[in-house]
Amino acid sequence: MTSVTPSKLYLVGAGPGDPELITLKALKAIQKAEVILYDALVNVELLELAKPQSIRIFVGKRKGCKAYTQEEIHDAILEYSQKYTHIVRLKGGDPFVFGRGGEEWNLALAHGMEVEYVPGISSSIAVAGLAGIPVTHRDLCHSFQVVTATDATGQLSPEVALASRSAATVVILMGLSKLEEISRLYISQGQSAMPVAVIQDGSLPTQRTLVATMETIAHLARMQEMASPSIIVVGEVVHALRRSSSQLHSLDSLPQGLNEQGCTDKTIIL
Amino acid sequence: MTSVTPSKLYLVGAGPGDPELITLKALKAIQKAEVILYDALVNVELLELAKPQSIRIFVGKRKGCKAYTQEEIHDAILEYSQKYTHIVRLKGGDPFVFGRGGEEWNLALAHGMEVEYVPGISSSIAVAGLAGIPVTHRDLCHSFQVVTATDATGQLSPEVALASRSAATVVILMGLSKLEEISRLYISQGQSAMPVAVIQDGSLPTQRTLVATMETIAHLARMQEMASPSIIVVGEVVHALRRSSSQLHSLDSLPQGLNEQGCTDKTIIL
Repeated sequence: MTSVTPSKLYLVGAGPGDPELITLKALKAIQKAEVILYDALVNVELLELAKPQSIRIFVGKRKGCKAYTQEEIHDAILEYSQKYTHIVRLKGGDPFVFGRGGEEWNLALAHGMEVEYVPGISSSIAVAGLAGIPVTHRDLCHSFQVVTATDATGQLSPEVALASRSAATVVILMGLSKLEEISRLYISQGQSAMPVAVIQDGSLPTQRTLVATMETIAHLARMQEMASPSIIVVGEVVHALRRSSSQLHSLDSLPQGLNEQGCTDKTIIL
Repeated sequence: MTSVTPSKLYLVGAGPGDPELITLKALKAIQKAEVILYDALVNVELLELAKPQSIRIFVGKRKGCKAYTQEEIHDAILEYSQKYTHIVRLKGGDPFVFGRGGEEWNLALAHGMEVEYVPGISSSIAVAGLAGIPVTHRDLCHSFQVVTATDATGQLSPEVALASRSAATVVILMGLSKLEEISRLYISQGQSAMPVAVIQDGSLPTQRTLVATMETIAHLARMQEMASPSIIVVGEVVHALRRSSSQLHSLDSLPQGLNEQGCTDKTIIL
């Protein structure tokens, strides 16, 4: 008689990008992995921590690269589970924050695999913080809400409109392409002066933060060529923290096409 | 001439309790610390990773122990900054999620100290996930909101009522003592059947999860003697994931005083 060790799927959060923002538990899961299926926003330096003989498959979406569909990812998990017992599904941020981790969890259990969730640092909280913006701040905000900008059809999610009417800090993920629509939504509700920040490449050396108001943010983001991945943070907390002089880099000059009104002292690039 | 290295405050997230849920970056900050000011929810095993000669001060609140006020914590930071250059403020979860990290950040900068935020795994996302509850799940929920149960006066925060009317998953921190009020709020809005989970000691070996509906949760939580620290998770995501047989422990018998209607197959202790 042989005893068969069931294959186990580790749903592992890789954090926002900085490879040091991975947990010890996630590191151990990577070090033991026979197979790693990783997403586009995962820092590839983390793969170097795995065993040399481990199989590493890029399953994310990137310009010019074929994207795995969620079904193809499921097929790959099941295929590797036939032969290997330690399979890591490595996702940017946290697996359960818009990471479709739940679907993979259910797939694994439905097929007799074991499953373990290893939390990751979520960009929704940490990238804001690393840009000097606390998602909560005493006397200013006792709640925060995290939404994705688009629904399944690619339209602006109705959740954004709901969130915009609450007193909570609103963190919008994957929203840069909808920034114009989002700002119009706030402006139409009389919230032109609402502080908003766009943070690109959060936690990486290339991190850039643009702080403005709903009135000016869409224009400034175009001028500054803000690019994905970016998160958007909306609320008074944007200005809750002091910024040290080393963190603050004012614009050297007004970007082309920008009038003085559009570029206030609240417009900064970190 | 002597050059003075400015003192630096590291606002470090210790994660939800499991010492392996700390980041490499936080670990490095602890290892280099001369002074560590730590909160009640920080796992003391993490302190053993610090230099033997480091000064470790408990500044949290615990039954029977004198609590430091926020002002006393500020005084301690400034006092130690006169003599030491590497001061770690170690907080449960993430420093900017109801951790008053922003106040300490501003204090440090106002007094010429440097400051760095080192994100932590927030209980709001991770403790739910470790109990088998994803805060978001495709086709079920595209948003989550995190609130504290009480406002500055100790009353149920109005944010909870606002959140209860949204389609988002609602995560309520520090809310166990308000569970009765919270459930009455949902019931009064016709949401008696809303799934809700109470998770105690999330990420620790003593973790327990109670899953019920708004109708039954307050009664069951008393019966099961659920205690702090606990988080409350409200929404359909409570039932999004399959549970393996090893995760699922049905109640052996109906708790005393509980009728059958109150104890359905959705009532489980993990």
